[in-house]
Amino acid sequence: MSASPYQQLEQEFRRLHAFRGAASLLRWDAAVMMPRGSASVRGEQLAALDSECHTLLTSPRVSRLLERAQAGASQLEDWQLANLREMRRERDRAIATPVALVTRLARATAVAEVRWLEAKQESNFALFAPHLEEVVALTRDKAGVLSQALGLEPYDALIDGFSPGFRTAEIDRLFRAVSPRLPGLIRDAIELQAKRPPLPIAGKVSSSKQRSLGVEVMRALGFPFDRGRLDESDHPQTEGVSGDVRVTTRWVPQEPFTGLMGILHETGQALYDLGLPEAWRDQPVGSDRGMALEESQSLLLEMIIGRSRPFLRYLRPLLEKHFGVTGAEWDIENLYRTLAHVRRGAVRVDADELTYPVHIMLRFDLEKHILNGTLPVRDVPAAWSEGLEARLGLRPASDAEGCLQDVHWAVGNFGYFPSYALGGFIAAQLNEAMRNDLPDLDDQIAAGRFAGLIGWLRENVHSVGASLGSQELIKNATGRTLSASPWLRYAESKYLEDGG
Amino acid sequence: MSASPYQQLEQEFRRLHAFRGAASLLRWDAAVMMPRGSASVRGEQLAALDSECHTLLTSPRVSRLLERAQAGASQLEDWQLANLREMRRERDRAIATPVALVTRLARATAVAEVRWLEAKQESNFALFAPHLEEVVALTRDKAGVLSQALGLEPYDALIDGFSPGFRTAEIDRLFRAVSPRLPGLIRDAIELQAKRPPLPIAGKVSSSKQRSLGVEVMRALGFPFDRGRLDESDHPQTEGVSGDVRVTTRWVPQEPFTGLMGILHETGQALYDLGLPEAWRDQPVGSDRGMALEESQSLLLEMIIGRSRPFLRYLRPLLEKHFGVTGAEWDIENLYRTLAHVRRGAVRVDADELTYPVHIMLRFDLEKHILNGTLPVRDVPAAWSEGLEARLGLRPASDAEGCLQDVHWAVGNFGYFPSYALGGFIAAQLNEAMRNDLPDLDDQIAAGRFAGLIGWLRENVHSVGASLGSQELIKNATGRTLSASPWLRYAESKYLEDGG
Repeated sequence: MSASPYQQLEQEFRRLHAFRGAASLLRWDAAVMMPRGSASVRGEQLAALDSECHTLLTSPRVSRLLERAQAGASQLEDWQLANLREMRRERDRAIATPVALVTRLARATAVAEVRWLEAKQESNFALFAPHLEEVVALTRDKAGVLSQALGLEPYDALIDGFSPGFRTAEIDRLFRAVSPRLPGLIRDAIELQAKRPPLPIAGKVSSSKQRSLGVEVMRALGFPFDRGRLDESDHPQTEGVSGDVRVTTRWVPQEPFTGLMGILHETGQALYDLGLPEAWRDQPVGSDRGMALEESQSLLLEMIIGRSRPFLRYLRPLLEKHFGVTGAEWDIENLYRTLAHVRRGAVRVDADELTYPVHIMLRFDLEKHILNGTLPVRDVPAAWSEGLEARLGLRPASDAEGCLQDVHWAVGNFGYFPSYALGGFIAAQLNEAMRNDLPDLDDQIAAGRFAGLIGWLRENVHSVGASLGSQELIKNATGRTLSASPWLRYAESKYLEDGG
Repeated sequence: MSASPYQQLEQEFRRLHAFRGAASLLRWDAAVMMPRGSASVRGEQLAALDSECHTLLTSPRVSRLLERAQAGASQLEDWQLANLREMRRERDRAIATPVALVTRLARATAVAEVRWLEAKQESNFALFAPHLEEVVALTRDKAGVLSQALGLEPYDALIDGFSPGFRTAEIDRLFRAVSPRLPGLIRDAIELQAKRPPLPIAGKVSSSKQRSLGVEVMRALGFPFDRGRLDESDHPQTEGVSGDVRVTTRWVPQEPFTGLMGILHETGQALYDLGLPEAWRDQPVGSDRGMALEESQSLLLEMIIGRSRPFLRYLRPLLEKHFGVTGAEWDIENLYRTLAHVRRGAVRVDADELTYPVHIMLRFDLEKHILNGTLPVRDVPAAWSEGLEARLGLRPASDAEGCLQDVHWAVGNFGYFPSYALGGFIAAQLNEAMRNDLPDLDDQIAAGRFAGLIGWLRENVHSVGASLGSQELIKNATGRTLSASPWLRYAESKYLEDGG
């Protein structure tokens, strides 16, 4: 019996999955292993794979098969229909973006990224501005063609590429819910914490000790080292595919928790990848549900679980075992105060849980205006400084720690920032629902038993893959549509409580 | 101006180069970094890349462009004509091998390799025999279709896939030249060496010490660590592309020279890759000239240079520096006797320079008969034992160190073995010519100056790429066609000399 159109599509997307898995491994290698002089060779390999994926998705054959499979949809199972929907989604986005535009964007961002780094090192926005202008112009073109093809507003069409199903209107609604209460919350938390400042944690902890702690924690969380690795890179990241997941973190000897927090963050995403349905693993329906959901898994593990007293009760003896440390500054309560410390600062990646959304709201606001032309690129530094001052009461000391701090715009990732904040809101809502189902979760965590936690996430998030839309997934998992209320409840109870 | 057919071909083969470079990096990762449980995922990625390369080479577009470029050949430069010839060569081989056959071979060899390993571990040929039967049958089919398409004898068509331009007739001629003198040479060398046996080198040297020595030697040879790496794997190998070369070796603490000899062997090939013409680097004409030439570079560096007194004079102080060793067993003369020791044994990879060709002649003889059907698979163990006894006067103690010792046949690499022996003959002939041009080469080597050596190889071998046929390359480099005489002269002067 010859293969049905649907089966032939599965075969095509299996190839796509293999190419993307290969590309992901090449990116991991570039971050972790590759000699410095090999970047251009690697760039060619990645470009060839990208272009092959684009060719596959835009081929007349795939479009023909999609039509024929749709015509025979009555014979397909539910997950196959969802797979077909995800295939169409990928095809539609690819076909809307002409190769010439993809190539021009790839070239422009490759140059812009280099210039951005130079400009950041010299804290000189003018060096970067003309390149950002070009990236913005091309991104606007891309948003335009996607908007037409998908029937979305241009900026929404970009957001949808990172976090499918999320729209500006909803993000605005979420931000409007938190922004009136956030300044007071931050102020009160800082005041309260000032009354009981943590003892400083001094001294250095070697990378190898930090690594051995990290590996033990990853094992306890269920990370399978026979299908994944932990390595070091400049920025924590997760690459690979479900059967071969590559987590990296960054070790800083004088900051004994930077590496571990990076591990928790990335392991959240890694366990998501590893928990995707095995039967669908090389199909679009078997992939994760986008950046916002990925970030929710990372933030849940790093922020809500990792920076909690029950987790620190589990961690305390491991610190003694791996770091050989004792003393009051390593007591659970002091560690908690250190790791949940709130501080207003100019730099997003150094921000705590409360001030983080402020940084995202600023970027969300600015990138909307940059894209629709109401904020000219030359005015970005001033708008950044003013926006930060209005929101957080401080100005960046320089462009380097102002509008040049993030790489996202240089590489054309407009529409990406909202997923960080969305991830935080989703994490809090999942957390609330999970604690309803698992009333003794804190005890389990304190005892180093994570099977309940990870099992709940697997059942309600990971195993869904992309078979549901983002909103549907969240509603099924938590019983309600996404709102900022759980996040506000979580933040208030964590940061406004008095004492330990 | 639109691209000419030739330029469009260059573009297609640039893609091919990128895919192959990606595949090579994935193979390196599988050998060095990959978690054990990820083999099947990696297999799918490699299969997708292989199949993409096959699709590209067999596409009607490429064949059409080849015809049109040929029609306009009068406007092409010499290197472009050579490039066109190499493109055709690749296309012809790919198009002769139907996808169905490629796929069946890939599946059969994947299973056969696993069964071979089990059979070897249990030293039980019967476990492997049915799988070898299948691989042989499919390889015969492949040799048949290639034979028809290329106008070569079936076995020659396989050899040509590894070492372009070499034929059975020539290999027979070379083997006939050495085989009458080899038994006497081996016997005399063993007798002579027995009169002055080396002191045993006892004790262990850690991997990290061996590595630091290896890195210093690689640097001295000109290996660019900004465009390459050294790592550890089960078997020494070289992967990657010219701008990102990945060398591996194997560290054995109680064998302080195993890792270094692996490094010299692989660095020979790595420097070949790195010395290929930069301007042609992503084109067929810019690739190496096949396995025999690659092996010549490896053997020249490991055997002829690395196991010589001048090199050991250079190495001696480095051993003291990195290993912290002194004593009579680490004297240059004792090291030389250790590294140039001749010994009859059953295992090819443990063989010395003199007995190595004997192992190859045995395999060459057997695989010809297996392929043409005159040696049934079930009779291979007996034929192996008898062949080894006739040639070397000993029988393998078991199938594990007899006909099950090599993976080559399990993975379908019939026609590969001759390249090892060819490499030895070519190395000796290059060595003779090089010493004519560089009379003080030994002094340079003893002083740790390798620029003359590598420069000569770069000029006469590496920089040629695939612009000449193998025989032409050898003749241009050495002034004569390939013969076994230089190897015999080299072997006799090295192993029949009396004293040090």
